[in-house]
Amino acid sequence: MSSFLKKIKYISLLLALILQQLNLKAQTVNKIESLISKMTLEEKVGQMTNLTIGRIASEVGDSLVIDKEKLRDVMLTHKVGSFQNVIGHAYSLQNWHNMLNEIQTINMKESRLKIPLLYAIDAVHGADYTLGSTIFPHNLGLAASRNTDLVKLAAQITAKEVRASGIRYNFSPVLDAGRQVLWPRLAETFGEDINLVTKMGLAEIAGYEGTDLKSINSVAACMKHFIGYSSPTSGKDRSSALIPDITLREFFLPSFAAAVKAGTRTVMVNSAEVNGIPVHASKYLLTDVLRKELGFKGVVISDWEDVKKLTERHRISTSYKEAVFASVDAGIDLCIVPMDLDFSKYLIELVQEKRIPIARINESVRRVLQLKEDLGLFDNPYVEQEAIKNFARPEYQNTALDAARETITLLKNKNNVLPLSKDKKIFITGPGAKSLTTLNGAWTYSWQGTNPNYFSKRQLTITQAIQQKAKNISYALGTDFKGGKDEIAMAVEAAKDADEIIVCLGEDAYAETPGNIEDLELPENQLKLVVELSKLNKPIIAVFTEGRPRIIRKIEPLLSGIILAYWPGEKGADAIADVLFGDYNPSGKLPITYPKYPNSLITYDHKYLDEVFESAAPQIYSEEFYPQFPFGFGLSYTTFDYSSISFSADKLKANGSITVKVTITNSGKIAGKETVEMYSSDLIASITPSVKRLRDFTKIYLEPGQSKVVTFKLSAKDLAFVGKDLKWRTEAGDFNISIGNQKKTLIYSAQ
Amino acid sequence: MSSFLKKIKYISLLLALILQQLNLKAQTVNKIESLISKMTLEEKVGQMTNLTIGRIASEVGDSLVIDKEKLRDVMLTHKVGSFQNVIGHAYSLQNWHNMLNEIQTINMKESRLKIPLLYAIDAVHGADYTLGSTIFPHNLGLAASRNTDLVKLAAQITAKEVRASGIRYNFSPVLDAGRQVLWPRLAETFGEDINLVTKMGLAEIAGYEGTDLKSINSVAACMKHFIGYSSPTSGKDRSSALIPDITLREFFLPSFAAAVKAGTRTVMVNSAEVNGIPVHASKYLLTDVLRKELGFKGVVISDWEDVKKLTERHRISTSYKEAVFASVDAGIDLCIVPMDLDFSKYLIELVQEKRIPIARINESVRRVLQLKEDLGLFDNPYVEQEAIKNFARPEYQNTALDAARETITLLKNKNNVLPLSKDKKIFITGPGAKSLTTLNGAWTYSWQGTNPNYFSKRQLTITQAIQQKAKNISYALGTDFKGGKDEIAMAVEAAKDADEIIVCLGEDAYAETPGNIEDLELPENQLKLVVELSKLNKPIIAVFTEGRPRIIRKIEPLLSGIILAYWPGEKGADAIADVLFGDYNPSGKLPITYPKYPNSLITYDHKYLDEVFESAAPQIYSEEFYPQFPFGFGLSYTTFDYSSISFSADKLKANGSITVKVTITNSGKIAGKETVEMYSSDLIASITPSVKRLRDFTKIYLEPGQSKVVTFKLSAKDLAFVGKDLKWRTEAGDFNISIGNQKKTLIYSAQ
Repeated sequence: MSSFLKKIKYISLLLALILQQLNLKAQTVNKIESLISKMTLEEKVGQMTNLTIGRIASEVGDSLVIDKEKLRDVMLTHKVGSFQNVIGHAYSLQNWHNMLNEIQTINMKESRLKIPLLYAIDAVHGADYTLGSTIFPHNLGLAASRNTDLVKLAAQITAKEVRASGIRYNFSPVLDAGRQVLWPRLAETFGEDINLVTKMGLAEIAGYEGTDLKSINSVAACMKHFIGYSSPTSGKDRSSALIPDITLREFFLPSFAAAVKAGTRTVMVNSAEVNGIPVHASKYLLTDVLRKELGFKGVVISDWEDVKKLTERHRISTSYKEAVFASVDAGIDLCIVPMDLDFSKYLIELVQEKRIPIARINESVRRVLQLKEDLGLFDNPYVEQEAIKNFARPEYQNTALDAARETITLLKNKNNVLPLSKDKKIFITGPGAKSLTTLNGAWTYSWQGTNPNYFSKRQLTITQAIQQKAKNISYALGTDFKGGKDEIAMAVEAAKDADEIIVCLGEDAYAETPGNIEDLELPENQLKLVVELSKLNKPIIAVFTEGRPRIIRKIEPLLSGIILAYWPGEKGADAIADVLFGDYNPSGKLPITYPKYPNSLITYDHKYLDEVFESAAPQIYSEEFYPQFPFGFGLSYTTFDYSSISFSADKLKANGSITVKVTITNSGKIAGKETVEMYSSDLIASITPSVKRLRDFTKIYLEPGQSKVVTFKLSAKDLAFVGKDLKWRTEAGDFNISIGNQKKTLIYSAQ
Repeated sequence: MSSFLKKIKYISLLLALILQQLNLKAQTVNKIESLISKMTLEEKVGQMTNLTIGRIASEVGDSLVIDKEKLRDVMLTHKVGSFQNVIGHAYSLQNWHNMLNEIQTINMKESRLKIPLLYAIDAVHGADYTLGSTIFPHNLGLAASRNTDLVKLAAQITAKEVRASGIRYNFSPVLDAGRQVLWPRLAETFGEDINLVTKMGLAEIAGYEGTDLKSINSVAACMKHFIGYSSPTSGKDRSSALIPDITLREFFLPSFAAAVKAGTRTVMVNSAEVNGIPVHASKYLLTDVLRKELGFKGVVISDWEDVKKLTERHRISTSYKEAVFASVDAGIDLCIVPMDLDFSKYLIELVQEKRIPIARINESVRRVLQLKEDLGLFDNPYVEQEAIKNFARPEYQNTALDAARETITLLKNKNNVLPLSKDKKIFITGPGAKSLTTLNGAWTYSWQGTNPNYFSKRQLTITQAIQQKAKNISYALGTDFKGGKDEIAMAVEAAKDADEIIVCLGEDAYAETPGNIEDLELPENQLKLVVELSKLNKPIIAVFTEGRPRIIRKIEPLLSGIILAYWPGEKGADAIADVLFGDYNPSGKLPITYPKYPNSLITYDHKYLDEVFESAAPQIYSEEFYPQFPFGFGLSYTTFDYSSISFSADKLKANGSITVKVTITNSGKIAGKETVEMYSSDLIASITPSVKRLRDFTKIYLEPGQSKVVTFKLSAKDLAFVGKDLKWRTEAGDFNISIGNQKKTLIYSAQ
């Protein structure tokens, strides 16, 4: 066949495929429009209503049991089209299958239009509401890995295990930038830098959604929580935030904008309020910004009970009915009510009173039905048999271990105290030493993650993992996480014979509001444990498992080694032990600024004004900005040298791009991974610039002595910021580009 | 004379007076316009330039000596029209007179147009740069007094003493609302409530400016610092603030708007940046809001070196010249350069290059000249002999004592431990016990207020003041303010024989940037001093002298009595002793929320969302909002009962007003003053309402058994808030009105 004919054939095939796709799309559209045309108002409103499973079920022993009478009432009489959540904890795979098939069977047999029911779950670091699933590190730790492939792989496994449970919609990932370290959901974020959040978030979404939501390897993802939730002024969960528009757009919106562009199917709304306006009632944010500006086509879902709370908590609506009006008018498609049917009742009234046009209802219903169609629920609404074999496959444990290892961030290694020799006498103490809950953190087989009875029996504590490597081990509790229990003297006594001390500190599991704190400092008795142990003059290595950076200023000088493991998941202890004894060379980099003082909590990308404090002589100078550990910090057991930064051109022009190259050499004695980060510093701009901004990063592996050249591409948009007009702009001028200790000035000119 | 003729005569006189005033005004206008028409560009720019005195003088011994050559260079060659400040500390009255007359003489004799020179000073709590002046409490304490008459009286004395020094322009008051307690200038504010700030600020301005700036009793006031300076995100002085427009207008702008309306002559610009825009370069804030919206007609003055800092610190201007363009274009009239003449040089160039029109320069010059005219400088530019007798009059000490007494806020009085008996053995300890600097705080005869050598010899320490009342006194230091010195064991030993312990804690003096802190908690050794003393099981009374509320959670339970004196000025010790021994019944009320935890710093007027933390069962509930002591809290040695709240009408209408009445009875055994505060709570609003807002207050005096009816007027504007459109609005609905423990619901309807 001639090259010409080949091309013709290829083009014809392509055209045929496109036509087929268009046809399928048209068929789907027709199916959905046809359905909508048949639906009563009640049926439509039912599709906009989501109930928690506790509304129609109860727990008997460890199993969930459906109350069919209640189910028929809400699903058949009141037409509710979706459910979510658990009652108190995770269930077995079999329990999920039975329960979901039972609901769907009644629905498909007895409902008028046989629209499949949609079930949603919070599977935020693994399929954490199905017993026996694989539990990964939380996002904050994953962000420390700087490994997008790993994040995607973990999300793929989560998607498979969720789908294997019979569930096709996952309320994950959090795309909120974690810029307020007090916030008890910081661990669910990818840290404080919006570029890092965006890259990691896109990888996680790609892992969840894949290329086809009908696949048994996929679930619908949910961009949480649009927008500003992560930055409450007080630091408390679900409290008010004050975020100027310019800040919202520069430091919070980009992750959502990128995820919308990537086609993410659903978004969950911020429960709190921004600048005095609850986001559930913000037409500006939900319609003008999200729909019109970002072009979001998918489903906007409320968070738990948040429409009702417009009246009770935010106090902007005089009644629940007015709250329903405000939220639907603002742009909510699907409401997690989660227990009552008043949302539906009031919404029906509002349409009947012509306050909400039926066209507005149809829009939301269309989006919900499209999601169900895309997920293949119209093809097969039941638990997919072929999906079940994807559950808890042994190889997933390797990924969980890889993920835990790559999150671990070595923050201090004085006199190379680490790695430890396996022959030494090691004393282990602290509340984290024998705790499983502090490894897994929030959302682990229960909301708070505090009940280890549901955890996998295969999971090891830090002490157990260490015992697998070193034989001469002793242990004492010392104190508990909250610092209420004081067995410190006993611990010090028990440590006297040891060569080295490992003290496991930090935070136990918590989720959302119960994780609120008033003081970021590590609790008193945890500090005291280290202070008392330090009197023995032995090397102390601290292992921190925690959801946010608790302040350690008072004990840091007493520690020889510091390992930060975040909440590393079910293989966390194994990974920690690997790092402690040198079986794995750590490579995590801080995804946040680790603060030194409780009242000095600013992000690495602060303004120049926040950094240098000048005072006229003869006055005292105050301290400059210095955190305990800076964003991007993390040690290795080897050393990496940076050299030879170069640009492909001296000047960058508006529509052009340049490449930035740098050479990295492993100058130490062992192999290791290194995250290479490129920062820019805008020297002068019409909005005061940040001292530096992370623009790109990559992670490489180097054998001892090996060198690699890393190449980054840089274009005008990488140097852009939000201007006074709230639009992105790049201004001509000089930018310092820095990678490691390498720095070079780039000139940007618009022409 | 018939009544009719009397009226005619009265009206004629009135008309004549009005015509005379108009004529005078016209003459002044003519004089100024005539001057402007004669001025060279250099002379005009000179009027826009302000130098610090250190540029043309040096200190010889304790005196300031002018370098005439330098003076002639800047004043005659470079036409500089105003000076300010001191070099290192306060000077004697005579030194001021000599120096100012010397400058003015050379100016009036040798300058071409003989425009009088203007001198400005920071006299923020008394004429604090003139030796021997009267030092009052800082504004934060004055706000605790809730006594506007007293604030005005203190400001009148300050004005007289400043004018007596030969200075007619005072950089005071701070009208920034003190909503960020970490900020090292909190003590200069009137606290966190904008209504309190406004009322107190207006009283202080009225005291400074009087009715005629030509009077020897008046000085021009300066509204500091427009706008948002007091709310830096990090808490550090001159660091960046993020304040949404809606918040800026509701919680920061009203004090400035009211002061503009009251005719205040000058305003100083915030050195920092709001939402990424340095206020010195914000045309929106300085021209659109301040000039056009608020209608400000006076002089806009830069703060210290802040135009230059647009390049060096904020990084929004590529050069000093561009910074000059940006700031003058934004709306600066007068620039505190303060040392170099580059501002003038660049401004001349910018006009010559036609980048800044001469009309813009004329506007600023007109305002500066008008200020000089209003201050009577054209009539008599020299030190006014008749003003001098107003300096340091003995009766001022009474006002200083009254002010200090009324600021003092009694926060705890367990088992009525206070007042103390004068016969008991009293042990006094702590860094505040023998310190004068902690009584006066910032801006006391030097910028930082840390050199007591310049203080008045008449001032007493707390220990000295106590010795004047009780004879059986012992003392030990315990520790210093920063907590570095540990003589705690000695103090505990010395306390063993005492009946009662007075421990004087808090902060030493500091001003601006050197006062930055990283941790709001009281330094460790101050806490330890109380912990160790408490082991003696004697009553401990703590006296706090401090510029901001340092956290005392860990020691509060160990204290029987707590007195907060802020920085009470030169009669502070006398006032504290009066309260300790019952010679004065305390009446101060907190002007801020006294926080309990370092990471829980929210104001009393937070949103409902910030207050109640609900979590679904079976989860843990977190703590509600509770400070150490709430805004408005303060005890008395007597008790006041509130009763019989009533409204003059059930409903308030748009253009109407109602009166709210409440009866207060002194139900205790001694006379006392009580601040009566009226709060409103908007139950539902289109912007989430604050839980409560202070709307009005008054202070009354009651003998034992005496009752008074207090009446407040309430109209729609008292219930208004800033809406989504950034305009003030009052929405129909219910409002809870509360006074003391009395509460009543008011219905507001627009019609």
